[in-house]
Amino acid sequence: MFEARVRVIYGDTDQMGVVYYANYLRYFELARSEFFRAHGGSYVEMEASGLMLPVVEATCRYQAPARYDDLLAIGTEVREVSRVRLTFAYQVTRVGETAVLCTGTTVHACLGKNGRPARLPEWVTKLVSPPR
Amino acid sequence: MFEARVRVIYGDTDQMGVVYYANYLRYFELARSEFFRAHGGSYVEMEASGLMLPVVEATCRYQAPARYDDLLAIGTEVREVSRVRLTFAYQVTRVGETAVLCTGTTVHACLGKNGRPARLPEWVTKLVSPPR
Amino acid sequence: MFEARVRVIYGDTDQMGVVYYANYLRYFELARSEFFRAHGGSYVEMEASGLMLPVVEATCRYQAPARYDDLLAIGTEVREVSRVRLTFAYQVTRVGETAVLCTGTTVHACLGKNGRPARLPEWVTKLVSPPR
Amino acid sequence: MFEARVRVIYGDTDQMGVVYYANYLRYFELARSEFFRAHGGSYVEMEASGLMLPVVEATCRYQAPARYDDLLAIGTEVREVSRVRLTFAYQVTRVGETAVLCTGTTVHACLGKNGRPARLPEWVTKLVSPPR
Repeated sequence: MFEARVRVIYGDTDQMGVVYYANYLRYFELARSEFFRAHGGSYVEMEASGLMLPVVEATCRYQAPARYDDLLAIGTEVREVSRVRLTFAYQVTRVGETAVLCTGTTVHACLGKNGRPARLPEWVTKLVSPPR
Repeated sequence: MFEARVRVIYGDTDQMGVVYYANYLRYFELARSEFFRAHGGSYVEMEASGLMLPVVEATCRYQAPARYDDLLAIGTEVREVSRVRLTFAYQVTRVGETAVLCTGTTVHACLGKNGRPARLPEWVTKLVSPPR
Repeated sequence: MFEARVRVIYGDTDQMGVVYYANYLRYFELARSEFFRAHGGSYVEMEASGLMLPVVEATCRYQAPARYDDLLAIGTEVREVSRVRLTFAYQVTRVGETAVLCTGTTVHACLGKNGRPARLPEWVTKLVSPPR
Repeated sequence: MFEARVRVIYGDTDQMGVVYYANYLRYFELARSEFFRAHGGSYVEMEASGLMLPVVEATCRYQAPARYDDLLAIGTEVREVSRVRLTFAYQVTRVGETAVLCTGTTVHACLGKNGRPARLPEWVTKLVSPPR
């Protein structure tokens, strides 16, 4: 899995002393954006070329809490690709640890300039991870 | 469905001009907190009595975008209750409109003072909506 | 002072058990947006007419913490107006209490369609509070 | 100035296509936390030793917008230190550029375990930058 890193700040936590549940979706976004950059195309360029990948579905399973000042590894891969849809999977751990804190998925539609479904470019469809 | 309301601010939107996908989980939290208050017990009192309901799972389906300055209705109901788990369902519309913008669910564990699974109080288990 | 209300959610707090300092700027935004709406013009309409009021300066003084589930009153007024600038002042209390939790200001430039400084419309310049 | 880096994500922007004004305070927090870590003590350890540095004042001057996918440098230094107060100054640029996007300050009280004013530890008072 590709891995992005993020340091948990106060602003990410809530009064339970753990990362607020919505903020994992922010981490997921950071990770998929770094994933694209690491694979030869930034999301900015994609948008400039008239392609958008809005999220149509998101899921999160919270298994153990991340805490203030944790350095997190946000593992990311493309799990599934169809002609007009893309599914990312995520897995959050602390850097250097194996215990999984959170897993999740996001499903993205592929839209063209007119806002209508468009085909994913070939370089993106090739990013799908082999089945394990 | 119980309904909470929220006005979309600039800070909720992103550069696509729509509500950022993570923020729906904030709206869901507001709605379930108001749901408890409307049904005779605030979440604050629950916590004071030693009960916590951390989110163990969350899902969102984004069907149409909410935009800046929209007045949203966050419909909420308890969909399922077991002895130690609680599932909320949500549905987001614009106030006065029927088109659904987003649906979602959150599953909560019930933990006692020691952080171990605890039974849901009876008044909470009674909040479950009848099947439709 | 005009007053907007906001309920503090978990997502607004941090692990100190208080509202995270950046979130007061969100409350300020909500309040000035409701202020415009209450005075006959929404910020959406202003933008549609080609006028923007980007924040060029913001200040906050944190006097006492707001907490989870507090119902806050965000008092707002226009403190100063020049031909191309607008200053809002804010004061946060709990509804029904007088102790001030936070005060702040935001200074806004007035920009026209081309992104250049523009004159504030007369109805806005009239919103300034009389000196006390 | 010490420098922390942050990549702007969608969730940081608003519908104007720029970083939402409250989010700079998040960046400031990240920067001062990294500043402490780089100077031999993490904020977590400080808290563990019974010391807290709550923000009592924050200011921001927004000079030019940061945008999606920008890699930002958040410059940070301790500008002033008294026995019970600490002032940080910040300066945001794009990495590799000199144009300043935003400057700001935060003033912190120093509180001990009982919540009363406490003296700053000597290693912290020594972090103040020499006047320029």
